[in-house]
Amino acid sequence: MITKLKDGERIDDLQRNGYKLIQNEKLFCFGMDAVLLSAFAKVYEGERVLDLCTGNGVILHLLKGRTKGEHFTGLEINGESVDLARRSIELNNLTNDIDVVCADVKEASSIFKGASFDVITVNPPYMKAGSGLVNPDSQKAIARHEVLCTISDITREAGKLLKSGKRLYMVHRPYRLPEIFEALHANRLEPKNIRFVYPFEDKEANMVLIEAVKDSGSQLIVQKPLIINKEVGVLTDEVADLYNKGSI
Amino acid sequence: MITKLKDGERIDDLQRNGYKLIQNEKLFCFGMDAVLLSAFAKVYEGERVLDLCTGNGVILHLLKGRTKGEHFTGLEINGESVDLARRSIELNNLTNDIDVVCADVKEASSIFKGASFDVITVNPPYMKAGSGLVNPDSQKAIARHEVLCTISDITREAGKLLKSGKRLYMVHRPYRLPEIFEALHANRLEPKNIRFVYPFEDKEANMVLIEAVKDSGSQLIVQKPLIINKEVGVLTDEVADLYNKGSI
Repeated sequence: MITKLKDGERIDDLQRNGYKLIQNEKLFCFGMDAVLLSAFAKVYEGERVLDLCTGNGVILHLLKGRTKGEHFTGLEINGESVDLARRSIELNNLTNDIDVVCADVKEASSIFKGASFDVITVNPPYMKAGSGLVNPDSQKAIARHEVLCTISDITREAGKLLKSGKRLYMVHRPYRLPEIFEALHANRLEPKNIRFVYPFEDKEANMVLIEAVKDSGSQLIVQKPLIINKEVGVLTDEVADLYNKGSI
Repeated sequence: MITKLKDGERIDDLQRNGYKLIQNEKLFCFGMDAVLLSAFAKVYEGERVLDLCTGNGVILHLLKGRTKGEHFTGLEINGESVDLARRSIELNNLTNDIDVVCADVKEASSIFKGASFDVITVNPPYMKAGSGLVNPDSQKAIARHEVLCTISDITREAGKLLKSGKRLYMVHRPYRLPEIFEALHANRLEPKNIRFVYPFEDKEANMVLIEAVKDSGSQLIVQKPLIINKEVGVLTDEVADLYNKGSI
């Protein structure tokens, strides 16, 4: 199939089942966050997955490539990102496996049936609206700052859409962790496993991967540290391996 | 000075200013938790320190040995532990610098003046009352289980006794972290720095060191991982160094 690219677009190889992803440099291009979240999330055979704030659909493709989930749905408010994601899905012949809905995450629970998903993933905007240098009109700002949705919105909707006993996976910044725990708990989601990501073994954590379970007890496990680089420009064995096998 | 030891007692060298500590094997003897907490806590010149659940006073002695704090007060409910601590203080000629009050931590804010301490440290019982194998009469059980005081009691009293902008240092188990964050926040204490302690680099965290600041913003830093062992029986350089210089 010949794919016609629009201005600013490129096709990246996801290194998984031959899947390609169309990205647009004007919009938010995926980073290591999405790769780590996809590797951290557990999806068992037959499970239904919803990816909130799906952007260009990278997490949907990575999870479809690695797991035996039954169906993968993405939700994204930005029409241009939805268009990119849908064209990637067609390009990879995955229209029976993945679909993307263009809508506001704040209304997710009125779009989908309550308690209808086994797994929800989300790589949300990390920064508070109004913090840092924000151009409120910029689509990149919307992907990075909580202009259109907050931790509270995401946990509220995820709490409604997950089946009891099932799992939410989120990647976020460690500095927001107290708020995240509070918002999870307020929505019947309890953190069960978290893993801190450290760029180097002697640096502060710059990401945290969170597994929360709906209606679970609160016995949290802090998994072994995930160190990204051995030295400048050299990935640790675990992260190099993650790019090969897709899971951590 | 000749120190008469009672049945079950021993004298340990704290490797700091020649200080000795009398411990009783029948009671709770200090572990790496207390050493790490003492090394993690910051005490600046002239500051007044309160150590809750002080036991035999190990943290008081380690902080006095390493810092220029003005005065160090311990609070302990167990009369036998208080007796041990006081005899160690005399043995080390520190009666002008350290004192220990025998009282219930739940009433700490009625014993001391509100907002009168710069630093509060606490190595509290980790486990919920009723969890695990507990003999409720055992003094060791009281030191390990929340029979006499809970996270909520400690954070409430610390919130009252700390000056605004000043610091609480706590060591605890990672699995209690969501509750700890909630209890801190409810008492005007915000976690500012936390550090996870991993027994080996490929194992789950088994301790967490927490610095919370009264009336502060909530910008949390997750410090570099603290790995204890390089391999079985061999401390990492950082931990070996900690035992030499007393801080991390």
